[in-house]
Amino acid sequence: MKNLRGFGSDNHSGAHPQILDALTTVNNGHAPSYGTDDISIEAHGLFKQKFGAQAQVQFVFNGTAANVMCLRLACDSYHSVLCADVSHMNVDECGAPEILGHTKLIALKSVNGKITLEEAQKALIRKGDQHFAQVKMLSITQPTELGTVYTYDEMKQLFSWAKTEGLLIHIDGARFANAAVLLNKTFKELTTDLGVDLLSFGGTKNGLLFGEAVVILNPDLKKKAPYVRKQLGQLPSKSRFIAAQFIAYLKADLWKEIASHSMKMAQHLRILVEGLPQVSVTQPTDSNAVFATIPQAWIKNLREQYFFYVWDEHTFECRWMTTWDTQLDDVKSFAKALQRTHQEVHL
Amino acid sequence: MKNLRGFGSDNHSGAHPQILDALTTVNNGHAPSYGTDDISIEAHGLFKQKFGAQAQVQFVFNGTAANVMCLRLACDSYHSVLCADVSHMNVDECGAPEILGHTKLIALKSVNGKITLEEAQKALIRKGDQHFAQVKMLSITQPTELGTVYTYDEMKQLFSWAKTEGLLIHIDGARFANAAVLLNKTFKELTTDLGVDLLSFGGTKNGLLFGEAVVILNPDLKKKAPYVRKQLGQLPSKSRFIAAQFIAYLKADLWKEIASHSMKMAQHLRILVEGLPQVSVTQPTDSNAVFATIPQAWIKNLREQYFFYVWDEHTFECRWMTTWDTQLDDVKSFAKALQRTHQEVHL
Amino acid sequence: MKNLRGFGSDNHSGAHPQILDALTTVNNGHAPSYGTDDISIEAHGLFKQKFGAQAQVQFVFNGTAANVMCLRLACDSYHSVLCADVSHMNVDECGAPEILGHTKLIALKSVNGKITLEEAQKALIRKGDQHFAQVKMLSITQPTELGTVYTYDEMKQLFSWAKTEGLLIHIDGARFANAAVLLNKTFKELTTDLGVDLLSFGGTKNGLLFGEAVVILNPDLKKKAPYVRKQLGQLPSKSRFIAAQFIAYLKADLWKEIASHSMKMAQHLRILVEGLPQVSVTQPTDSNAVFATIPQAWIKNLREQYFFYVWDEHTFECRWMTTWDTQLDDVKSFAKALQRTHQEVHL
Amino acid sequence: MKNLRGFGSDNHSGAHPQILDALTTVNNGHAPSYGTDDISIEAHGLFKQKFGAQAQVQFVFNGTAANVMCLRLACDSYHSVLCADVSHMNVDECGAPEILGHTKLIALKSVNGKITLEEAQKALIRKGDQHFAQVKMLSITQPTELGTVYTYDEMKQLFSWAKTEGLLIHIDGARFANAAVLLNKTFKELTTDLGVDLLSFGGTKNGLLFGEAVVILNPDLKKKAPYVRKQLGQLPSKSRFIAAQFIAYLKADLWKEIASHSMKMAQHLRILVEGLPQVSVTQPTDSNAVFATIPQAWIKNLREQYFFYVWDEHTFECRWMTTWDTQLDDVKSFAKALQRTHQEVHL
Repeated sequence: MKNLRGFGSDNHSGAHPQILDALTTVNNGHAPSYGTDDISIEAHGLFKQKFGAQAQVQFVFNGTAANVMCLRLACDSYHSVLCADVSHMNVDECGAPEILGHTKLIALKSVNGKITLEEAQKALIRKGDQHFAQVKMLSITQPTELGTVYTYDEMKQLFSWAKTEGLLIHIDGARFANAAVLLNKTFKELTTDLGVDLLSFGGTKNGLLFGEAVVILNPDLKKKAPYVRKQLGQLPSKSRFIAAQFIAYLKADLWKEIASHSMKMAQHLRILVEGLPQVSVTQPTDSNAVFATIPQAWIKNLREQYFFYVWDEHTFECRWMTTWDTQLDDVKSFAKALQRTHQEVHL
Repeated sequence: MKNLRGFGSDNHSGAHPQILDALTTVNNGHAPSYGTDDISIEAHGLFKQKFGAQAQVQFVFNGTAANVMCLRLACDSYHSVLCADVSHMNVDECGAPEILGHTKLIALKSVNGKITLEEAQKALIRKGDQHFAQVKMLSITQPTELGTVYTYDEMKQLFSWAKTEGLLIHIDGARFANAAVLLNKTFKELTTDLGVDLLSFGGTKNGLLFGEAVVILNPDLKKKAPYVRKQLGQLPSKSRFIAAQFIAYLKADLWKEIASHSMKMAQHLRILVEGLPQVSVTQPTDSNAVFATIPQAWIKNLREQYFFYVWDEHTFECRWMTTWDTQLDDVKSFAKALQRTHQEVHL
Repeated sequence: MKNLRGFGSDNHSGAHPQILDALTTVNNGHAPSYGTDDISIEAHGLFKQKFGAQAQVQFVFNGTAANVMCLRLACDSYHSVLCADVSHMNVDECGAPEILGHTKLIALKSVNGKITLEEAQKALIRKGDQHFAQVKMLSITQPTELGTVYTYDEMKQLFSWAKTEGLLIHIDGARFANAAVLLNKTFKELTTDLGVDLLSFGGTKNGLLFGEAVVILNPDLKKKAPYVRKQLGQLPSKSRFIAAQFIAYLKADLWKEIASHSMKMAQHLRILVEGLPQVSVTQPTDSNAVFATIPQAWIKNLREQYFFYVWDEHTFECRWMTTWDTQLDDVKSFAKALQRTHQEVHL
Repeated sequence: MKNLRGFGSDNHSGAHPQILDALTTVNNGHAPSYGTDDISIEAHGLFKQKFGAQAQVQFVFNGTAANVMCLRLACDSYHSVLCADVSHMNVDECGAPEILGHTKLIALKSVNGKITLEEAQKALIRKGDQHFAQVKMLSITQPTELGTVYTYDEMKQLFSWAKTEGLLIHIDGARFANAAVLLNKTFKELTTDLGVDLLSFGGTKNGLLFGEAVVILNPDLKKKAPYVRKQLGQLPSKSRFIAAQFIAYLKADLWKEIASHSMKMAQHLRILVEGLPQVSVTQPTDSNAVFATIPQAWIKNLREQYFFYVWDEHTFECRWMTTWDTQLDDVKSFAKALQRTHQEVHL
């Protein structure tokens, strides 16, 4: 293969070497299954360190599952959840929140991927009306699906409103480390300290082989967790192999290194492409993705060189995503390819 | 730790070195996610080789999920499935078949873990009666949860009856390789050639780090598969890492080696324990587990040395399970521990 | 039509004239919908009178729905419920308890339609084990589907065991009035006073046009009720029409009259048929049905004269059910028809 | 009670006398249950007359249930359905479409309660993408929840687009008769002839005591219907009592009389109120409801005289609904009350 690295997604890259090493290291002898082994216990302790002593972690296999599990822990089946119209939950999980999560989603018109307080307030209606699926939780994605990050003040404003209204709060944090690095806050400051109840904490998109963590920050929601996880087909039997990866990720701040690197690469990319003719950057670049529209005619040729996704079938807004192993050369070559494509098409 | 290996479960052992190597080897550069990468495609081809050209494989994360996915592919929500009373589906999946699989289970009284034709026939009633969840599928576990294996003739008899009655056939094969080795048949001979429609083909209990395969043998059931898997939270994003493990497992007959070894260890164990005083072997030892009752008084002491599960809370029937890394010395030491416990307790 | 009345089911008869009158009487002007009208409020008060001040009633449309609603109020989706193998829930609701009720059923081997304490005790296993759908409730049918009635002592024994074990208690009482009459107890004595949490209280089979009542006896289970009922498609908009029927049924002890009559007719029938050649009564006749086996050859001919159901496809056990409008002449004629059929077949 | 009739809803009125008579008339002797009786068969025939010979009807108890049943017949659980944001399905069924219907709803921004072709087209994306709940059906409400009626051309345009795109078509027709009368078309012309697949045909809001009809117009969707209805708790046992009501409603064009009357009353009401000070009619009055904003200060006083619903908590848009028994005097008195309230408040 001429070029192994593209801008498709942060799940196109493999596992970070330190994470793979950690996984390999624990492949030794027998260990109890289903989360009772020493490695899993160590990992649990680490999550408590990072999120507060009340936090409880449940490892699951993927992000859709983490979100569904949070819905099940928070909601009864006559509840509804406020989320962004572009949220992964709403448009990328094939109905799992409704069918597996047993919850109705109320999709709010978002701005740059973010829920606004105004839209959330408008949607909070008909409390106590048996005909209406009662709103139980606010779910935001941080960073958003559009590569933006809610500021600390935006989080505070939304969450304090939610608390006032008696709503639970969920964060879909498939790339949560990026937000922590950008906002220069600890995980605890961005969750427990703001009253967040549930967090889908991503691993796979941040250098793990596989594995996500449901972090239960509200102790009232813990009780059902083991049963719900098991029933959802998300109880890892050889759990030490997820736990070891998260230990490597969290222990010596590898998460910061990975987040910083991929975000820096996205900044480089943005700077290189935003001056290019017919390339129009469409979103702030807060996290590790650059969104831009390019002429439809460029797409086929470009994607043969560097894979990426067309985000919007109608406007040809594309998503270029960086990852822990993106190299500055990759970014530069891609910017050149854009330029070259422009010239070729215009000859 | 004094003794790392016990007899708890085949998911207490780690990954087989060859399988871990294979996984490590593919951790290199970018690959498309969600099953479209070259490694995944190679693995798919291998499954077709083993099961027939019509077979389609969908990798999932664990065994409960594989079973639930098979239920979803076979059944509409007003259907029911015949299974053994002791089946994993019925007693070890925390309601997932019903709640996620949207299917009613009809649990049949089993003999040594096996469904009998007579019980299956008695349960096939009220066809076309709208009040009764219509029986759509027969599901057997092979090898069973009690370490027994349906003979080839037993399979033929049950399956040909099922086909005559218009039922679909599912095998829960968490340790399916063991059955193939014991019966000295190919995977295809035990599935496609007998009219099996769906197979949950186990990996995690046979030396993989994680990963199971839903093998769709009946092409009519393929259509929904990608959506159902995604919705169930079972679509692996970095799918090359499951695929690579299955390639290592299937390609050079590593599966045979692993199955033969663990089953041989179980035979050794059975021979050593069945003469011991107060140890009563309760099931045929066809696969990789020995079931036996021992005095309740022995259990605490023994489990501190070698972990294992008490299978029946009332009779103190225990399960001693061997695995790919069980050593003859482990088996001998455990038999000695049993003897020693007998002597100590009787002093 | 030569003969309008058969022995098919108590839902083959129409509405009792007093009940139809009551319904007709309230068809007058406008009334608020969804249970807030005066008639509904009067009916609620009457249920409190009969079951205790803590009782709350929710009207629904049919018996399957009443049972499903009770499951939803009592259970989370990782729970299971102990019920009889022959219970309506298990074999006559087309999977509704699992799919709509989000609950796994554990079907216990019954004797004459009744759950035995021994079987219930054996099934109560694996508390706290995340792999096993946790047993949350005991559900009995009173009278049973086989026309038997649990004695007061049997109820006390089962329920006190259930309470000790922390289980909730549900009664499927499609014909509950019959049990109250037979046991000569008030509704309250048979429910609230014995610690029953939820009751499906039947109307349709006892002379109503349509309508069942979910009686919530445990106040802790009230909160979700309005939402669950609405979501299940069971919120009657013109609720006065169900309420008025229940008022007529309960107010002046019409329920006693209906129950006594239909049960007396069943006794007559039993006495007349149990001496007949080749007729073998199979169950005690505690309620309003006689179960008996007859030769297969008789069935077609007999059913053309008097409709009834063949209960068991294999043994030709039949169910002959009486109702509020069964006349002594009907019973006598049917007994004669049995005799005549015997003679004709043996000519 | 001073004034029995208000403008709350067409389910606040009772049953039309002819319909109640019909119901009373069939309360005679025994009839087979579950839809196999002569009355039910006659009703089925009548629906075939009205909708085409291919039509099959399934009676259910209420409108939420009818909609849910249509979703279940049309969709697998990985499908989604396009509906209006203000549709009953989306905002008045407490999550039933998702939880019982096993379907994701995609709520489209509507204009006067109607879906526009443009919004529908924009929402039809990502065909074949496993991450996205595949759009399977278009559901419109006719008349809409806002008292408007899609014109025949609007129906044709939307439906022909849907057919081109391979979508099924559902109509939520709780007041479908009104649309037929307004558009001066037969039921068949508005459904079968336009390619409609499924219709929720309302009874309760049009003079029935209770009862709705799921009309399956596409024969491919028939097979599951009996099982799905039973499982949903919607199989009426004494089905003759729903059937008889629908016969009375459909046979001698009582439906036209009821629809015409209630719509005429709404027209009168609109004419009388639209000139009043501070009353602002907000929607076209195509069906039997007038929507208008009035000052918040008026509401309490007015509702004590004539009950009605505040439709929008924020704008104080109110819904005034007429019904089969609304009298011209009611309308005039209500208009006067509005005027009086205006004067009193401004004194």
